[in-house]
Amino acid sequence: MKKLYGVGVGPGDAELITLKGYNLIKKADVIFIPMSRGESTAGSIAKEYIDGKRVLKLEFTMGEDNKKRYVEAADIINTELKDGETGVFLTIGDPMVYSTFVYLVKELFNNNIEVESIPGITSFGAAANRTMLPISLKDDKFYLCDGKIDEEIIKKSDSICILKTYKNKTEILDILERNNFKYVYVKRCGYVEEKIIYEKEEILNEKDYMSLILGRRVSNG
Amino acid sequence: MKKLYGVGVGPGDAELITLKGYNLIKKADVIFIPMSRGESTAGSIAKEYIDGKRVLKLEFTMGEDNKKRYVEAADIINTELKDGETGVFLTIGDPMVYSTFVYLVKELFNNNIEVESIPGITSFGAAANRTMLPISLKDDKFYLCDGKIDEEIIKKSDSICILKTYKNKTEILDILERNNFKYVYVKRCGYVEEKIIYEKEEILNEKDYMSLILGRRVSNG
Repeated sequence: MKKLYGVGVGPGDAELITLKGYNLIKKADVIFIPMSRGESTAGSIAKEYIDGKRVLKLEFTMGEDNKKRYVEAADIINTELKDGETGVFLTIGDPMVYSTFVYLVKELFNNNIEVESIPGITSFGAAANRTMLPISLKDDKFYLCDGKIDEEIIKKSDSICILKTYKNKTEILDILERNNFKYVYVKRCGYVEEKIIYEKEEILNEKDYMSLILGRRVSNG
Repeated sequence: MKKLYGVGVGPGDAELITLKGYNLIKKADVIFIPMSRGESTAGSIAKEYIDGKRVLKLEFTMGEDNKKRYVEAADIINTELKDGETGVFLTIGDPMVYSTFVYLVKELFNNNIEVESIPGITSFGAAANRTMLPISLKDDKFYLCDGKIDEEIIKKSDSICILKTYKNKTEILDILERNNFKYVYVKRCGYVEEKIIYEKEEILNEKDYMSLILGRRVSNG
């Protein structure tokens, strides 16, 4: 039997990996890291932990036919992992939050590879702790989305997080303001380039891909 | 200056603490653990890491006047932490997700204690990874709540998690079924008593407080 662990390495700060993920990396026979156009964010975050390990890069360029790439990646993993060996596949953040690991899992199952997924700190979790703007207090409804927002849901939510805000920040901030939400923009949480911005005009001037907006309904009390 | 770190210890499995949280515990002068009726879940989870440290228990019994308890707790922390010392306050899961740490922070600020919050793995994050039912795939809307659910939000969501399901499980499962959601019930994720249940009747028979339901819209494809 071969086993692959999906390990969430967290959003950027190397110390935000779990002890479990760290220990699995140290014990693994092979580390697989996803690449996009020659770069791997997950690989960079876990750099100091995978140094000296057998590391295999798997290319997943966005926009290509990824189904075919997952089949090929599972095939490579199956070939590289010998019977009785364990591998670790690194993912940024958490493997179950806007990650492509789930698609790979299906193909791994088709190859009879045992799979286990290890949670990681999400970017919105890190940003909420960094700014101490709570994701949820008692009885709160929290809404998470990925660029496309739905004002009807926001109207009924107490707290929100919008990832990938670079396309429609003006729309997002307008909706939040007219629904009485305070907000904060967090860029590259945990990186040296981290930036936390509360001012609307300043937020609108930012263009970074790895950014998010946290919002929270201002209470009447 | 005195500094207190809120550290999320994760949902139950001791290895799901972050390296950062673990290192802060090891370096801290004092560990503060919240107690409720003489027990501390966060303290139990991190038991092996706080062994041998100076540990101080703070009672926060539910239902009492907690505002007063937070003022008192901040006062105790202020007295126990000497100038230049650092303390760690443990919270189950993540300090920004249905935690009372946020209320304590306000009182700590009033005592001029510097505060930093370290994210932890949430119960819903751990359960999603355990069952490999994704929290979110590309463009998904995820909705998190705490017992009280709103069918109008569910209608517009792709994925949901309901914590504290012990009061209204029948209502929850009925709403999920009529909105074409598949679901799974996860009890005490990461504990020896962990139970993962997909069958409706079996779910309805469960009574555990530390349980949640993950749901995901069944796609038409």
